[in-house]
Amino acid sequence: MGMIGGGPGAFIGAVHRIAANMDGEIELIAGAFSSDAEKSKKAGEELRLDPKRVYASYKEMIRRESELPVNERIDFVSIVTPNHLHFEPAKLALENGFHVVLDKPMTFDLEQAKKLHEIAKKSQLFFCLTHTYTGYPMVKEARCQVMSGQFGSIRKIYVEYPQGWLSSFLEGSDQKQAAWRTDPSRSGIAGAMGDIGTHAFNLAEYVSGLQVSKLCADINIVVENRKLDDDGAVLLKFNNGSSGVLFATQIAAGEENNVKIRVYGETGGIEWKQEDANTLLVKWLDKPTEIWRAGTGYLSSFASHNTRTPAGHPEGYLEAFANHYRNFALCVQATMNGEQPKPEWLDFPGMEDGVRGMAFIENVIKSGQSKDKWVDLKI
Amino acid sequence: MGMIGGGPGAFIGAVHRIAANMDGEIELIAGAFSSDAEKSKKAGEELRLDPKRVYASYKEMIRRESELPVNERIDFVSIVTPNHLHFEPAKLALENGFHVVLDKPMTFDLEQAKKLHEIAKKSQLFFCLTHTYTGYPMVKEARCQVMSGQFGSIRKIYVEYPQGWLSSFLEGSDQKQAAWRTDPSRSGIAGAMGDIGTHAFNLAEYVSGLQVSKLCADINIVVENRKLDDDGAVLLKFNNGSSGVLFATQIAAGEENNVKIRVYGETGGIEWKQEDANTLLVKWLDKPTEIWRAGTGYLSSFASHNTRTPAGHPEGYLEAFANHYRNFALCVQATMNGEQPKPEWLDFPGMEDGVRGMAFIENVIKSGQSKDKWVDLKI
Amino acid sequence: MGMIGGGPGAFIGAVHRIAANMDGEIELIAGAFSSDAEKSKKAGEELRLDPKRVYASYKEMIRRESELPVNERIDFVSIVTPNHLHFEPAKLALENGFHVVLDKPMTFDLEQAKKLHEIAKKSQLFFCLTHTYTGYPMVKEARCQVMSGQFGSIRKIYVEYPQGWLSSFLEGSDQKQAAWRTDPSRSGIAGAMGDIGTHAFNLAEYVSGLQVSKLCADINIVVENRKLDDDGAVLLKFNNGSSGVLFATQIAAGEENNVKIRVYGETGGIEWKQEDANTLLVKWLDKPTEIWRAGTGYLSSFASHNTRTPAGHPEGYLEAFANHYRNFALCVQATMNGEQPKPEWLDFPGMEDGVRGMAFIENVIKSGQSKDKWVDLKI
Amino acid sequence: MGMIGGGPGAFIGAVHRIAANMDGEIELIAGAFSSDAEKSKKAGEELRLDPKRVYASYKEMIRRESELPVNERIDFVSIVTPNHLHFEPAKLALENGFHVVLDKPMTFDLEQAKKLHEIAKKSQLFFCLTHTYTGYPMVKEARCQVMSGQFGSIRKIYVEYPQGWLSSFLEGSDQKQAAWRTDPSRSGIAGAMGDIGTHAFNLAEYVSGLQVSKLCADINIVVENRKLDDDGAVLLKFNNGSSGVLFATQIAAGEENNVKIRVYGETGGIEWKQEDANTLLVKWLDKPTEIWRAGTGYLSSFASHNTRTPAGHPEGYLEAFANHYRNFALCVQATMNGEQPKPEWLDFPGMEDGVRGMAFIENVIKSGQSKDKWVDLKI
Repeated sequence: MGMIGGGPGAFIGAVHRIAANMDGEIELIAGAFSSDAEKSKKAGEELRLDPKRVYASYKEMIRRESELPVNERIDFVSIVTPNHLHFEPAKLALENGFHVVLDKPMTFDLEQAKKLHEIAKKSQLFFCLTHTYTGYPMVKEARCQVMSGQFGSIRKIYVEYPQGWLSSFLEGSDQKQAAWRTDPSRSGIAGAMGDIGTHAFNLAEYVSGLQVSKLCADINIVVENRKLDDDGAVLLKFNNGSSGVLFATQIAAGEENNVKIRVYGETGGIEWKQEDANTLLVKWLDKPTEIWRAGTGYLSSFASHNTRTPAGHPEGYLEAFANHYRNFALCVQATMNGEQPKPEWLDFPGMEDGVRGMAFIENVIKSGQSKDKWVDLKI
Repeated sequence: MGMIGGGPGAFIGAVHRIAANMDGEIELIAGAFSSDAEKSKKAGEELRLDPKRVYASYKEMIRRESELPVNERIDFVSIVTPNHLHFEPAKLALENGFHVVLDKPMTFDLEQAKKLHEIAKKSQLFFCLTHTYTGYPMVKEARCQVMSGQFGSIRKIYVEYPQGWLSSFLEGSDQKQAAWRTDPSRSGIAGAMGDIGTHAFNLAEYVSGLQVSKLCADINIVVENRKLDDDGAVLLKFNNGSSGVLFATQIAAGEENNVKIRVYGETGGIEWKQEDANTLLVKWLDKPTEIWRAGTGYLSSFASHNTRTPAGHPEGYLEAFANHYRNFALCVQATMNGEQPKPEWLDFPGMEDGVRGMAFIENVIKSGQSKDKWVDLKI
Repeated sequence: MGMIGGGPGAFIGAVHRIAANMDGEIELIAGAFSSDAEKSKKAGEELRLDPKRVYASYKEMIRRESELPVNERIDFVSIVTPNHLHFEPAKLALENGFHVVLDKPMTFDLEQAKKLHEIAKKSQLFFCLTHTYTGYPMVKEARCQVMSGQFGSIRKIYVEYPQGWLSSFLEGSDQKQAAWRTDPSRSGIAGAMGDIGTHAFNLAEYVSGLQVSKLCADINIVVENRKLDDDGAVLLKFNNGSSGVLFATQIAAGEENNVKIRVYGETGGIEWKQEDANTLLVKWLDKPTEIWRAGTGYLSSFASHNTRTPAGHPEGYLEAFANHYRNFALCVQATMNGEQPKPEWLDFPGMEDGVRGMAFIENVIKSGQSKDKWVDLKI
Repeated sequence: MGMIGGGPGAFIGAVHRIAANMDGEIELIAGAFSSDAEKSKKAGEELRLDPKRVYASYKEMIRRESELPVNERIDFVSIVTPNHLHFEPAKLALENGFHVVLDKPMTFDLEQAKKLHEIAKKSQLFFCLTHTYTGYPMVKEARCQVMSGQFGSIRKIYVEYPQGWLSSFLEGSDQKQAAWRTDPSRSGIAGAMGDIGTHAFNLAEYVSGLQVSKLCADINIVVENRKLDDDGAVLLKFNNGSSGVLFATQIAAGEENNVKIRVYGETGGIEWKQEDANTLLVKWLDKPTEIWRAGTGYLSSFASHNTRTPAGHPEGYLEAFANHYRNFALCVQATMNGEQPKPEWLDFPGMEDGVRGMAFIENVIKSGQSKDKWVDLKI
């Protein structure tokens, strides 16, 4: 694996490295960690990489790695830069035959996302968009149960993502994470909706197996002088006629990262929240709620495949992240060995999720500005 | 106390009786329990009332009780009939000098509510609308803390009320509770929004001390052949410029009666849910969340006044209900004794809450039918 | 009902009155509220009793009430005095034909308990010992499930009762509750073990249907200058060969009244805690844990009979207490009507529980002083 | 790092590898994965090790690695064999200058543990015993708070460790984990007490900063035909005069791995349970309980140093395990660089914990067989 971005001070770069590293299947051997050649070099040293494989730019990395013999070169790149620096490196990597792992949201805007999709389709390479939350085993279990039809047709979906860390004007101080996320030139047209709203959106579509067809959004900039939305709530209509509510906020003072989803069908439903990630509540109209737990013997193959420890040994965010990397790597490896990836391995977020996420961003911001109630989710 | 409605098979009538009875301050001595004279008589017998005080109709009760000497007659009436039978008996009672306890929502429509408000204002009698959830001590504590300004100005309010009991077409079978609640001729223009949405609305305004100024609603009839909404979600704007989300549903299969509110200000906020009613979570931007508990020594006078037991001896729904009755009775009694009721006693829902609740119903249904995004909450 | 004790400042007296009053089946009509005639009179006034039925002593009450015509006199007495004042009034009441409700623990010592048991047996009157926690519907559900054999034979029982309110030398200040509970002349040989240890003991035997046969106790006085134990932990052996742990403490600073029981059989078990009283966790070796909830349609008749509200409308401590009163009253009433009480009504703690509780107290204190490991629970 | 044990089918070997690997500081480069040379080779292949570094026995590994130049050889060994195979390889490694990570319990018996301690002391090498639970950041926070004296002197400690996986005679089937843990020739004199009781014991001493001085145990073999204890409960006395309760069981059907500790001082205390590992409850006599959370800005340096993600991104068992490895590696590295390890790095379980754990095992089993109540914890 070669990494693009993720130099000193980056939060998500470190997370990607731990996740990739966890299962011993993936090795970081190259990197262009910063657009500043010196910083990239320094990061490479700290990561104890071979200095020859630490590059001054992603372009150099892709060019030089392409020139190496196939069995020496990196198999894929992992791109962990801010949103405005997603499209170009991903495009270049795909065009040069490298599989791609990309942090979400997919691109700076929907236009780019659709172009990248085209490129990826032609390339037949693997592409993973790291929507962490669908990597949790109990989220996969939730999807399996919902898709099995055991709850009848789905009627209502609530998904929420409250954070509080942007309750003050943090970008006014020297806070790198806050700075780029609230800057339209790096983040795109959306703040909270792009940063965490897309996670909520992806989670809702993944677990329900449905697609949002219309939305009606209240999008707010709550903290004075902020340039992008830090709060929003969205009424949803899904393609089976059901409805839902999505909210995502970064000004809920006192909240950490409290992702939660509830899906209800005719006879029951599910509830999952990240704070208690190893638990899935399964609810029934006329029976006791059941507490399904990660690591037990009664789970679906999709859940079981994505746990490393027995029940009662909690796994968390890094393991969920690592599941995407592991499944992606298993697919890459299988293909390199001329084998067919298993369905459980193929279950990581990809191009379709990415394009839909970008469409969500564009349409939710548009709806926020509209006086009409419903806006179609157009791609 | 004299009761109007609440005969055999009534859920809320029995709740009112237990609540009124709990603290030994109020005695049920008269009743017109059904529009069927025979049923009323039978209910009176079961309740071991003096047969002379069991009446064939509420009109008879109010007339005859009025004729009794002041120290013998009932001091107030408690009206627990379906919505279409709220206005007339309440009006008659007020006009004849009886204080009134009335089950929510206040009336059949907003027009009636405003009229009743006028009548009540002239009468100078006490009026209590039993929005149960604001009777919980930790809800009162939440209001005190929010109103104290300790969280700075309020920025976001989430209130939710999921139930699942109307997931099937229950009104098609012989279920009395489902029947009238889904019948426009008895319930009014709203189903779930009137039955439980008004509770959520009242809770949001009570705890925040704010008023909803605009709303944008998605109102649904999910179960086939149902005549009134059984599900809805509403984007809210408050009169301080902040925003919120309210949802109430009766088709969330597997949910019981899961009322929950979260309010966030600049530096922190609160979370309360009825399932864990004796707990109030107090959240802070940079400090640990605190678990405030009913019955402890550190609570506000408004919370303390409304508990009967020390910490760790949970009180519940009936006690919350009883708090409204007790406070109402303390006010009636104080006035009868020529004394000034304490602020803690006056803290029960009244006419203003009732009129606002009816305005919510009318406007939320209107918004649900509108293509425009925002509807002003007009009274 | 006539009450003995429970004058001003009494905690448990007020609880008994609310509990008795709750369902409208029982009326407080007489009382000897204090050994001080003046205080008793004043309490009667506050409770708005007929002054003729307010007595200067329990002896007077029992004598004078006995002289009233049967249909005028009280049917039973409720005794809510400190432990050293349980035996004499209970004895007198039973000997004069009054049914008895008595606060726990049953008597000052085991000797008295056995005598009272003899008297009660002869009298054929009803006797209720208010071990509150077995009044909770989900505790009754737990017992039903355990007794059904669905978990196989019972292997392990954990019961705990941590409180923190006696963490300081409260009896040194003017705290009435602390004063008598830590005073050997009023409380007996045990402090915490008598006050709350007996509750835990009773709960364990009730839910499991087993009896403690041996115990090994570590009994401590933690707070300096205290005269009775404020902390203890006990290893238990049950009469089916299984084992358990009981602990009760009043010096766990920060704990409220956190009663909890866990019972495990060969294939599963149950967990209940008072903080979440409307929930019963049912655990299985190879299946998801189930969340059984009060007020639902799938419960046993013993649980259903003891709820007043539908699921999601939490009932609490006062309702659990009221269940004992209601069941006791239903039995008294049935017998007065020449009818057979239902099994659900007869399910309240009685003489056997009381005697076993006193035996627990005597043996647990004895074990605490012994150098031998195991002490037989002798009665 | 070179690993001893941890071949195919081993649970804890895989956990050690993930933990060691997680932070990219430690690389697995050698191994003797099985006493069967062929199996060891195969495991090495699967782990993609250089075949030259995969050895037929631990003796061969230590000898051959010792012969390599210092900068090529492994720095330490990680021993993940069953208990009877701890002492010899650990001894040999230490005697040959390799630092050691060893799975708990330390050795087969106390005698071996004391010998190993002597050897380690002489060697001046680092030794880490992987008592996982003290690797959790909120356990470290708990210790910091308790040791700070903010709760006054410690009065009561409850520690529990219920599991249910040995509820049936699993060792009768082909279950590798059950087989060695219930076999006296591989596990030692204790089953549950050695496997999980030692964890509970270590956790209690670590968080409280106290030492157990006396104990009184009830040790049981619950499942028929089992050869070692599968259940036990222990009354504890600590060296400051306070008392506690420890229980550990593997027959609590329906429990997973539910480690929990509560420590109470004069004015408050803490509660932590692994199911909610990122939370520490801090309790106070007269104030609301506080919810301290991993990843927040207000934690001690000991907690902060041991987290990788911001608040709300849960870390779990593998991260706790990895913390021990990382701290151990940081100490090894610092020493190799001639630097002083930081106090936060030195905070991993070592020889003293190991010897005390073995003393617990010997004395708890002895107490279980004794008729006397208290047994001194002798080393």
